[in-house]
Amino acid sequence: MKCETKIVARYAETDQMGIIHHSVYPIWFEAARTEFIKLSGITYTQLEQQGVMLPLASLTCQYYRPVHYEDEVTIITETEKLSYAKIIFHYRVMLNGELMAEGSTTHGFVNSATFKPVNLKKLMPDFYTALQASVEA
Amino acid sequence: MKCETKIVARYAETDQMGIIHHSVYPIWFEAARTEFIKLSGITYTQLEQQGVMLPLASLTCQYYRPVHYEDEVTIITETEKLSYAKIIFHYRVMLNGELMAEGSTTHGFVNSATFKPVNLKKLMPDFYTALQASVEA
Amino acid sequence: MKCETKIVARYAETDQMGIIHHSVYPIWFEAARTEFIKLSGITYTQLEQQGVMLPLASLTCQYYRPVHYEDEVTIITETEKLSYAKIIFHYRVMLNGELMAEGSTTHGFVNSATFKPVNLKKLMPDFYTALQASVEA
Amino acid sequence: MKCETKIVARYAETDQMGIIHHSVYPIWFEAARTEFIKLSGITYTQLEQQGVMLPLASLTCQYYRPVHYEDEVTIITETEKLSYAKIIFHYRVMLNGELMAEGSTTHGFVNSATFKPVNLKKLMPDFYTALQASVEA
Repeated sequence: MKCETKIVARYAETDQMGIIHHSVYPIWFEAARTEFIKLSGITYTQLEQQGVMLPLASLTCQYYRPVHYEDEVTIITETEKLSYAKIIFHYRVMLNGELMAEGSTTHGFVNSATFKPVNLKKLMPDFYTALQASVEA
Repeated sequence: MKCETKIVARYAETDQMGIIHHSVYPIWFEAARTEFIKLSGITYTQLEQQGVMLPLASLTCQYYRPVHYEDEVTIITETEKLSYAKIIFHYRVMLNGELMAEGSTTHGFVNSATFKPVNLKKLMPDFYTALQASVEA
Repeated sequence: MKCETKIVARYAETDQMGIIHHSVYPIWFEAARTEFIKLSGITYTQLEQQGVMLPLASLTCQYYRPVHYEDEVTIITETEKLSYAKIIFHYRVMLNGELMAEGSTTHGFVNSATFKPVNLKKLMPDFYTALQASVEA
Repeated sequence: MKCETKIVARYAETDQMGIIHHSVYPIWFEAARTEFIKLSGITYTQLEQQGVMLPLASLTCQYYRPVHYEDEVTIITETEKLSYAKIIFHYRVMLNGELMAEGSTTHGFVNSATFKPVNLKKLMPDFYTALQASVEA
């Protein structure tokens, strides 16, 4: 599965260096992840309604070139690793064919009421299979 | 009741004009409101736990002078108007004795589960009395 | 001129009430304004490069119904009033034909180096004419 | 040098999981870094005015326990590594003696006009010496 998300950099996302602030990239990753999950056959909203959440366990980001206001970047999202308990997403921020930044997020699967770990394969076999296929691709 | 909240402007809050972005002021107002409510004898966290929320019905803000990164502003919060159903807060953003910006927020009192309006005086008489005293002051 | 901007609400834009936080609407207004200006024949980036900025003088917002994560809203942007020195934009946030919120922003035209007021009609007659046409429409 | 920064979690920083959104931690790190640099004898504002900026080259964050609205966390900032060209800061987010999250940021020293790398030791020997002392401590 190939997931490409287009995002136009907002003025509010700039800082006084005249570039997009580094804290914005995790938010763009999340918007891209939302679309990735939707393409996997279920929305994240539905996931939460069915009792599963994916809070972050960790985050990394490397910044190569600055992105500016009104730039339309493309976020390419891929799944790097999947187990019953957690998933790692990887993101590349592209502009005019150049890699501007990349990063990853690791998420545990937890029960939305108790925040306790759940086994995604047992709880949501179809969604798990779709994610697994995306890792293998 | 006099409520003064000190806030140091963050780098992430600047934009490429080199000033604090206008969307940050409502967030500062909220931080100041949190402190105002705490001084009224109950935290906003406790309010929500007891089933009452104060979502915004409207917001206004006037910007007079730009605030910059590392400026330590003081937000002066006051209550402008109170009824059983809603409250209006007023905020002044001060820097070195000068008024940089001011604004107001109007909030309905609603049930946190249903979002339906509630009568604050009936539900939380002590908190209502404290708010009323602050309006008269 | 009719300017409609589609925005998908981000997870980072929600708060613990489970709705889009009120401070996000000014950021959506700004994204819509960026598109409006672009449709008027010049990008805001170019405006700044040519020495003109439009900092906010004031902001209002009315919140009618909560917007949720993954909702795709449409922002309808119009110009309400224009003079040589300032402009007022008006925004409506629509979801499935319903008005969720609306607001306005007032901007002065200033020199980007000095922050001093400029006469937009003199400085950028074509852009001024395009804005004027949008007010009359 | 020991740098502890107190921050009260804002409502706007929560998300619909009812916890502080993960994109907020880099902003807290930055507020802590601002204070750390100030303690080193120069403000970041002065650094920029003297022509040096510290844009991020990379960011990491590990999330151990959720932080909630109105929690007052303490950020402990330390320098991990320093060279003429770059610096690594490390941050711990503490609440009631517990480690809630930790992270690091790597920054290059660049010229604020050209974004080209600069030699900090040559350009600002006193500030460099203060940073070096903090790494050794």
